[in-house]
Formats: sequence, C-alpha cells, structure tokens
Amino acid sequence: MTFWNSLFRPTPPETLAQKYKLRKVPNQDGTIFLGNDRLVDPYELEALCDAVGWARRPIHKVRIALQHSFVVITLWQCNHNFRKLIGFARATSDHAFNAMIWDVVVHPKFQGRGLGKTLISEVIRELRKADITNISLFADAPVVSFYEKLGFIPDPEGIKGMFWSPSE
Amino acid sequence: MTFWNSLFRPTPPETLAQKYKLRKVPNQDGTIFLGNDRLVDPYELEALCDAVGWARRPIHKVRIALQHSFVVITLWQCNHNFRKLIGFARATSDHAFNAMIWDVVVHPKFQGRGLGKTLISEVIRELRKADITNISLFADAPVVSFYEKLGFIPDPEGIKGMFWSPSE
Repeated sequence: MTFWNSLFRPTPPETLAQKYKLRKVPNQDGTIFLGNDRLVDPYELEALCDAVGWARRPIHKVRIALQHSFVVITLWQCNHNFRKLIGFARATSDHAFNAMIWDVVVHPKFQGRGLGKTLISEVIRELRKADITNISLFADAPVVSFYEKLGFIPDPEGIKGMFWSPSE
Repeated sequence: MTFWNSLFRPTPPETLAQKYKLRKVPNQDGTIFLGNDRLVDPYELEALCDAVGWARRPIHKVRIALQHSFVVITLWQCNHNFRKLIGFARATSDHAFNAMIWDVVVHPKFQGRGLGKTLISEVIRELRKADITNISLFADAPVVSFYEKLGFIPDPEGIKGMFWSPSE
C-alpha cells in the first residue's frame, strides 16, 4: 500500500471506537457505539439538541451541567474517520440514594430503532452499579408510555412531580 | 461572678448561633435558627428522620448524600449550651439548570409553625442565587397542597414524575 493510500484509507469504526473507549451497540448496523465519558463537547451536544428542536442553552452552563452529572451516556455513529454524537442522556445524583435522568435525546435520523431504550438502559445500569435504586425522571406527556415500557411508573402511590414557578 | 457561675451560666442562643454561623428565623420564639452548612452529623439527621417515622438509612450513605448535595438547609433550636437539629432539607443539582429537593423534614414538636415553609424558601433562595431556575420535587399525596401554597405546580403541561421500578 502506498503512503497516500494509507493516509486516505477510511478508519474502520472499531478503531475509532477503541480510541474513544466506545462499545458497539448490538442489533444495529455496526457503526453505532455507546460511550460513558462526560467529556462531551458541549457544542456538539447542543447541535444534537438543536436537531430535535430543543431551546438553545448557554454553552458555559451546558459545560457545568456535564461536569456535575453523575452519569453521562452517549451514542455515536463512527464512520469515515470521525464520530458523530447521535444520542445522549445524563443523570444527576447524590451518589447514594437518588438519581434523576435528564436530557434524553436521539437524533431524528436515528430514531425508531431502539436507541432511546439503549440510552436509558445504560443509564440505569450505571446507576445500579453505583448502588442507586431511586431512579426517576420527568416525562413530557407524549413519552410517558415510552418510559412505562422501560419500567418507569407515573405517580406511584400518588407521589406527584412538582415544579416550582416563580410568583410574579 | 464566681468561676463556677461563669462555667455553668447558660450560653445565650445568639452566641451558639454565631459559633455555628446560623441566622435567626423571624416570627419564632427566638431560639430557632437557620444554617446552610452541609457538615451535618448524619447520626443527628437520622435521629430527626426517625422522629417523623422515616425508614432507617445506612449512615455511610447519608454521609455521601450530604457531601453530594448542592444545597443543605438546617433548622436548629439553640438552648442551654447546645443546638438540636429540628429541621432539614437538601437539594441535588447539576449546578447549572436543574435542582431536585429531597428529605424535607421538621421535627413533630416543631410542626405547624411555618418552619417547613422556611426550609423550602431558603432552599429556593440558595438555588436562585446559583442561577438555577428549574426547581422540582416529588411530593407524597398528603403534602401536595402544602407545596402548591409555596408555588409548586403538579404535572405542569402534563409533565409526569416517573419512578423506575426494577422488573422481577
């Protein structure tokens, strides 16, 4: 193989995955990988959130939130020498009893193939590894049934999720 | 004043409060003070939780949870040379966007005099000082109306609090 050929030869997804310590997601097309490193580029995360139409957030606050999340799970498409962030979820926690899952997002192009379930299962796996059993989240009305399928119960024993709203 | 008199003279509540950097709670009997120091003795916290009938928790996990809470607010009765923990609330947070309030407790002897409101108002004040606006909690059915009076809204826009339950 000539020098130029080797330079422009596409990196196989596995090599990229190894570099970034990613794990292949089973039952996908072989280019989708999971990561659990909180060192996500906040600009890349916000581009992903943009793709699903979420409101823009200040980058410096996104960086702080990532630093202070207990679990960060990422989904990547590895292809043609680079990786692209296509899914994300994070959890805050007191490191002992409670955890809350936030910012669950899958890029629209990759929705409908079970990757949301993959993200949530990974978050739960990491939290249980840390012996945290009280795992909760707030679900918008359209995704309540999605989370029910993953074992989440709305308002168990009449417990209500409540949001503080500043009075005028 | 003799030596023995000075030794056994009760310390005024204000002196104790100053030592522990506590602030007097207005409209109380002058012995109730607020603190925001996370260095709470976990045994003392669990004794308080015991007094309201909560399930026992492992002390080493209580200590970890305190360390990893973003805001800790305490209520103390200062009297006769010592202070007693009579109220507690804490919040976890990603230090940027979201905070969850947990473990809100007032000793039964001190309930019914507005101290629950004092605790929650202080937690919110600390969180807002840190520019955190998404403040939420899970309320058991009997305390939903208590939190509504403090500005919390259950299920706003159909958002559901959901708890993960391990499948057998």
